[in-house]
Formats: sequence, structure tokens, C-alpha cells
Amino acid sequence: MRIISALFILLSLVAPCQDINKLSEKHIKENSTQILTDFKNLLSIPNVAYDLPNINKNADHIISELKKRGVETKLLRIVGTPPIIYGYYPVKGAKRTLAFYVHYDGQPADKNNWINDPWTPTYYSKALFEGGEPMDFPVSYDEIDDEHRIYARSAGDDKAPVITILTALDMIQTNKIKATSNLVFFFEGQEEAGSRQLQQYLNDNRALVDEIDLWLFCDGPVHQSRRPQLVFGVRGVTGMEITTYGPNRPLHSGHYGNWAPVPGQILSELIASMKDEEGNIIIDGFYEDVEPLSELEKKAMQNIPSIDDGLKKELGINNPEGTESYNERLLRPSLTIKGLSSGNTGKLARNVVPATATAAIGMRLVKGCDPEKQKNLVEAHIRKQGFHIVREDPDQETRLKYPKIAKVTRSSGYPAARTSMDLPIIQEVIERTKHVAGDDLILLPTLGGSLPLYLFTDELKKPAIILPIANHDNNQHAADENIRIGNLWYGIKLMSALMTMDK
Amino acid sequence: MRIISALFILLSLVAPCQDINKLSEKHIKENSTQILTDFKNLLSIPNVAYDLPNINKNADHIISELKKRGVETKLLRIVGTPPIIYGYYPVKGAKRTLAFYVHYDGQPADKNNWINDPWTPTYYSKALFEGGEPMDFPVSYDEIDDEHRIYARSAGDDKAPVITILTALDMIQTNKIKATSNLVFFFEGQEEAGSRQLQQYLNDNRALVDEIDLWLFCDGPVHQSRRPQLVFGVRGVTGMEITTYGPNRPLHSGHYGNWAPVPGQILSELIASMKDEEGNIIIDGFYEDVEPLSELEKKAMQNIPSIDDGLKKELGINNPEGTESYNERLLRPSLTIKGLSSGNTGKLARNVVPATATAAIGMRLVKGCDPEKQKNLVEAHIRKQGFHIVREDPDQETRLKYPKIAKVTRSSGYPAARTSMDLPIIQEVIERTKHVAGDDLILLPTLGGSLPLYLFTDELKKPAIILPIANHDNNQHAADENIRIGNLWYGIKLMSALMTMDK
Repeated sequence: MRIISALFILLSLVAPCQDINKLSEKHIKENSTQILTDFKNLLSIPNVAYDLPNINKNADHIISELKKRGVETKLLRIVGTPPIIYGYYPVKGAKRTLAFYVHYDGQPADKNNWINDPWTPTYYSKALFEGGEPMDFPVSYDEIDDEHRIYARSAGDDKAPVITILTALDMIQTNKIKATSNLVFFFEGQEEAGSRQLQQYLNDNRALVDEIDLWLFCDGPVHQSRRPQLVFGVRGVTGMEITTYGPNRPLHSGHYGNWAPVPGQILSELIASMKDEEGNIIIDGFYEDVEPLSELEKKAMQNIPSIDDGLKKELGINNPEGTESYNERLLRPSLTIKGLSSGNTGKLARNVVPATATAAIGMRLVKGCDPEKQKNLVEAHIRKQGFHIVREDPDQETRLKYPKIAKVTRSSGYPAARTSMDLPIIQEVIERTKHVAGDDLILLPTLGGSLPLYLFTDELKKPAIILPIANHDNNQHAADENIRIGNLWYGIKLMSALMTMDK
Repeated sequence: MRIISALFILLSLVAPCQDINKLSEKHIKENSTQILTDFKNLLSIPNVAYDLPNINKNADHIISELKKRGVETKLLRIVGTPPIIYGYYPVKGAKRTLAFYVHYDGQPADKNNWINDPWTPTYYSKALFEGGEPMDFPVSYDEIDDEHRIYARSAGDDKAPVITILTALDMIQTNKIKATSNLVFFFEGQEEAGSRQLQQYLNDNRALVDEIDLWLFCDGPVHQSRRPQLVFGVRGVTGMEITTYGPNRPLHSGHYGNWAPVPGQILSELIASMKDEEGNIIIDGFYEDVEPLSELEKKAMQNIPSIDDGLKKELGINNPEGTESYNERLLRPSLTIKGLSSGNTGKLARNVVPATATAAIGMRLVKGCDPEKQKNLVEAHIRKQGFHIVREDPDQETRLKYPKIAKVTRSSGYPAARTSMDLPIIQEVIERTKHVAGDDLILLPTLGGSLPLYLFTDELKKPAIILPIANHDNNQHAADENIRIGNLWYGIKLMSALMTMDK
């Protein structure tokens, strides 16, 4: 065994790109039960962001594990908030610095909905929905199957990257492989609580983060098709509420119906004016700032497997908005009626002309769109439909002055982020990930959802991409969260490969 | 005094049209304190429809008052419901029968919102909103002013007609004037509870009601301009709820926004398609069956004072629906969005694409429109917009089959009623009322609100008109309901005039 190990080390030094997978696999085989035990211990510490004593226990535990592996650590603290674990692993002669972002907090969990206690990690023969049975944690590699799963809060979201990073460090140290970049570990403790102080943490520690050349966000699941993926962006988010006005108090629909203006009618007409029959937004300029995809990104789009038919069937949809595919639609800013209210419906409906009607509008933004400008465009559209815009409920004078009045309450929000696939360093990451994941690797220009990735891409002005390792059916945020063992191994190989990425 | 009385009787027999007002005025002067005391006693009996013991006390009291005046009475009963007081006052040689409909029940009252107990009638020097002060009930006619008011539940709605009818009977009997028609008194006890058994009462007592030639509905207030009015119709009422569908469960607006169909958008587009920019309904055929006004009715319309400017100012409205006047708009069927709901707005709004959106639609109908046909027209319009209509939430197969689905839940309802002003008997009533009210009398083709008057006009096939006597500011249905004394006197004169209407 020793001779083989030595041979591997030799080969890896000469051509790490060729053999890092084999070294990782060997390391996994030789240490699998220890890796699972270590992970179990990590998952046993409750990790809801508002539970600061336990959050601190998580941080202490992870810090001590990083220190064991020679990482210089520091707890970044803002009083009363979960700390950020900052780890630095300098590499002599390295000319760049990669940062691995992970969050060690998890979603709250209602124990009553879970089969096992969320913080008592339980090993299963396969997924519960496939009929998995609980079993003891394996005591040898031979007992382990890729389809096994560990059930626990944060098994997938987002402690799996912690254990894969620690294991990757072990692997390169055991094999005396030199990392090719300085490594930064940036583990947040309140992502599931909205990352409320993230910007402040970044501002307060600008010197530490300014030297980072690339941010790797180790979070989220792989593609719904089970294929591995890299994600290059997220959509931004903002929104507004619009209230339209009828009479200054609800009126009897008999005495006044057909004469009093009906706010639900007025609001409906306004909403209807915002989209065409196919569901495309026809607000002037709404798509104007959308940054087009590069040729490379267009090509990547073509390699994403279509999930449209599956989604339609799952969600009971015959006719989605727009004429493009699901993935193409995510590359456009959206405008969604999240809520409507006026008077009452159902058993509470009364024979009235209501005084107001309100729509809650959610907007998702893509690369190029400014949240304030997009809201301005919507307001310009509202004015174009003949409305006078107010910020507070109109007084009597205003009511009598304008034929149509809309109160617009703007939400805050933040822009989308997207890192170009064309950047040389990103090309390297893609190549290196393909080495682990194979040519099956999906390159997704953007997620539909939103994360404040712009803090890194736009504020720090650094490339930032998302490296998911968890299985897509990991039940993140829900009961019975889990990680598939095969995905854990994938994560270890991926981290190892990226830490030793050739320059 | 006796000689004068005899003279009056003589005159009234010769030319009742000329002098009935004077006889009524004299009777009022001579009996004012007794009339007010009698009214006070009647108003002191609580009269909410579900309070059957008190409802029965009201019925017993009124029956005994009718009997005192020689009226043949009968309590029409359906077990467990407030009885109808039926009174018959036959007149030898009379060739027709007039029925006076009144309801002796009143709206429930929350004592906490009233200045005085709702069933402790209190006398005021003028309206509360004009600074009226409480005073003792007057002990002589000289103390009484037309602007005085009595505050009590049902003072205006609808016990005032009871006391005016009883007083009119006294008057004609005192003066030995012969009524010119057989008189029927039909006093309902559950109008404010929805007249649920009215149709059954009419069916069960068909022989009693079939001989009636004209129904006079003594209910409601005079015109907002304070001018007296006769009302010839009411609108019908019906409605429906429409639910549109997005995904089969609420989806994350980031992951799916811009792809998943948005039910609030779909519903808004459907609602918007129902009206033009001016607020006219553009559903095919919606106005087609509207029965036009006769020349006489058109002329009457021109004599109705405009209340549009006042209403706009009061209700904070710059731009009412449609381009016609308030009174003209009431002569068209209406379509009102009474309620809208989808997802949430305000603080409860979440970042979702909701699964459904629902609109509660109220429809008022005018003479000529059939409630079922009008709903069919709306459904035909919905289909024309590309929707598949369902009656229950769609199953998966239905969802996948149709691009747009609308669940339509139809309400029941009833048609409008309108009695033609051109009928000879109606012309007589108009002339006779003008004799009391003067040329100021407003002839209103229809109210905006709804009453099941069709039971009389369409089922019994008899003319039916509404004779309001209460002041327009009587606070009916609300706290501090009241009657203005001048309106009470008007009612006595009107009842006397109609009972002695020449043939």
C-alpha cells in the first residue's frame, strides 16, 4: 500500500490534473468511516442562527477542526450575531487566492414533522421515499453504498461542504500535495436568517477579503436531472405594492354599483396592461438592460437538459408563461402578482363596492437590471395608464383632483449577479470540475432564486460562482433533510481538485 | 267644531281630492300628542326578527290596534318564523283592492353604538348631527316642530308606516270618509332577515293575495334631495365567483417566476376584458335584454334632481364609471368586483407564485334581464377568452389538458322588478301623491338596490310600487335611527290620500 501511495504522490506532483480523483477516491476508501463519524459529530450540534450558544458551539468545533489542519483561523464578530469563521491557508509561491464560502447555520426545524430528531444524524440504506431503512453508521468502506443517506438538519444545506473541505485538506496533506492557491475559508453563521450583517462583515474586514481572487459558493443542490452543475449567477429581487382606489368607504353595490368606480376593476386593468397574451412583460424598457449571454454561455445553455415537461407534469401546468424554455425564462426579469386583495371573496364576500384593491408585485432581476430603475419603469408604465401616483393614501383633495390614483409602495431589494464563463479563471474551474464530474457537467448561467451574491461580484468586484454538491432531493429547508453519500464523495473530490487546480 | 267637521265631510264626499290634505292636517293637529305616544309605545317593543317572543309582542300589539279600527285581522304563520300580519278592511262597493306592505321587524342594534337605548324612543329638538337636544315628548301641538325627531330602532325603517296607516284609518273614520278601495294590510316580520319565507307565505295564502290590484310598499327613505318620491322598481341581484389557476401549489417566485403561470395575472386579464375604458360592460349581449323606458318614464327621469356632484364630493370620487348620470347608470345591469384574493398582500405577502386567484363578482339586474341568462353571458365571455370552465377545482388531468381554466361558482338571485308608470292605476297614485307632495314629487323608475319585488310583479303579476316616507338621513340599518316629525305627518297625509283615492 505504501508503495502505491508513494507512486500516487509522485504522479500527482507531476500531473495533478490526471490523478487527483484517484487520490481522493483512495483517501475516501481509507478514511470513509472516520469521515462519516466526523460529519455525524458536526451534524449533532444544533445550528439555528438565533440560537447563539449552539451557533458558537458550531463555530468552536469547526475552528478547532480547521486548526488541526494548519489553517490560520479568526472569528469575525459583530456583537449579538452569529460569527463568521475566517480561515486562511497560505501556500508558498501561490499567486492567487480562492475563497470557499459555506454557511454553517441551518433552517429551523419542527421536530414533530421529522422522522428522526433533526440533530440526531441517522443513517439510511437509501432515500426514505425510495423505502430506505435506518441502519448503523458503517464501520468499513465495504458496507457503504453511494445511495446511502444521512438524515439530519443541514446534512445537505450547508454542512456537507464543511466536511468535504476538511477532508480535502486531509487528503492533500496526507499525500503531501501542495495546494496551488492560497485558500480562504469564509463560513457564515446566519445565511438562513437572511445574511443580515453580511455586508457589514465584509465592510469591517475589507483587508481580509480584498485579496481574494475568486469566490466559490459551496451551497445548494445539483441539477434536478441529478447531473452535477456549476452555477454562475442568481437573480436579483425587488418589488412593490400597488393600491387603487374606489369610493372613500365601501359602498352598497346595489345603490352604487355601475356608478362608483370599482378598485378591483381598475387594478385588474392596470395589471392586465403589463403583459401581453404570451406572458411577456410589455412595460417599456423592462427588458432593455438585460445583459446578453456570451457565445460560450449560449452554448452552455444548449447543454442543459430540458426539465420543462417534467415540471409541467409535476406542477399541473399546461401553459407556462412565455414561449421560451424554463431555463431561458430565468434569464429575463420577472413580474409576478404575489398577492391580490380587495373586499372579500368566499363566505365573507359582501355586496359592496370596496374602497381599495391592492396587488403585491414581486420582481426578479437579471444581470444588467438595476432594482431602482426597474421599479421606475413600472411606475412610468402606471403613469402612462393615466394614474396619479401617491405614496400615502390620498386625501380628499387628491381624490377629487385625479381620475385614477395608485399608491405605490416600493420594496428595497438587490441586483442580480452573474460571473462570466469567459473569464480565464472560470474556464479553469470549469475544466477542473469536469475532471471530477465528467462532461455531464451542467453550466447554468443563473438560478431563478436570489442570493446577495452582488455583494461579492459588484461590491468587491470579484468573480463568484456557486458549486453545489448536495443531491437535488435533499429536502433542504424542509423536514427530513439529507445528503446522499455519493454526493458527499463527489464534494470531497471536487474540493480536492479545486484546491490543487493548476495555474 | 262639529259644524266645521261636518262641512269637511261633505266636501270630502263631494271632492275628496281637494280637501283630504286639510282633513289630515286637522286630524294631526287635534291628535298629535296621542299619535306620538302611540308611536312611542310601538317603538318600545324590540323587533329583531330572530327574537320571536318580542316579534310576537309586536304582532299582537299591531293586531290589536288594527282591530280597534275595524280591520279584520289574521296572523299568517309558518312555524318558527316571524308571522305576517294580514289585515282586511272591506269597503262596500269598492271595485279594487290596495295592499299596504310594511315590515315591522328592524335591523339588529348594538346598544354600545347608540346614544340612547334603541328601544327607548327619545325625542329630539332636531337631528343629532345638527346639534339636536333631547326633550320630553310634546304635550301639545304647539310644542311640535317639523324638524323634531324621534330616535329609536325602526323609527324610519319600517314602523313609521304602521303608525301613519293607523292614523289615516282614524282620520277617515273620525271624518266618516269612505275609503274608495278595499284595503289590505300586509305587515312582514322578517324583512331585515332576508324575507326568507316570503315566497312561501305568498304561496300558502294565494287566495288572500290574489284579489289585490296594487301593492304599495311603504318602506325606504325619500330622495337624497329631501324631496318626496315614488319608486317604481328595484334592481335584481345575482353573482358568481371566478377562480383562476396557476401551479397546483404555491411556488417560489424566484425559482419559477416568469415561467409558472400567475393566477392573479390571468384573473386580472379576464376581469379587464369585461369592461371598456369608460366602465361600460363589453360582455356580448349584457345590455341586450334591458327593457327601455317609456316616454313618460323618460320624462320623469328628467325631473329627478342630479345628485352626482354631491355624491362625488361626499365619496371622494373624481371619475365615476360610465359617462351617464347616477340615475341613468342605475337603469343598466351592473358588474362589480366585490372581492379579489390571491396569495397575500401587505405584511403577509410572500415570494410566491400563488396557486389560485379568486374574484367575487356582484351583478345587479334591471327590468328585462334574467339572472340565469346574464350569468350565462358572462360564462360565454369567459370561454371566449380561452378558458375552460369547471365547477370544482380541476384535477391533474384537466389541468394538463387546458391552457386556461376558470372555476365558476354561480350564486342564486332574483330578477329586477319595475312597474310601468303608464298604467292607469299608477297614474292615479301619482296624481294623488302629487296632491300631498306637490309637483316636487320625484318619480324614480328604479332604486339601485334589490328587494324581492318580483314576487309581486312577476309571480303574482300585479303592479307594485314603493312609497317612501322616512327622511333620507334616518340612519336606517345604523345606530341612532330616527324619523323626522315632518315626514311622519307627510306619511299620514299620504296614506289618507291613497286610502281615499278616487276611482
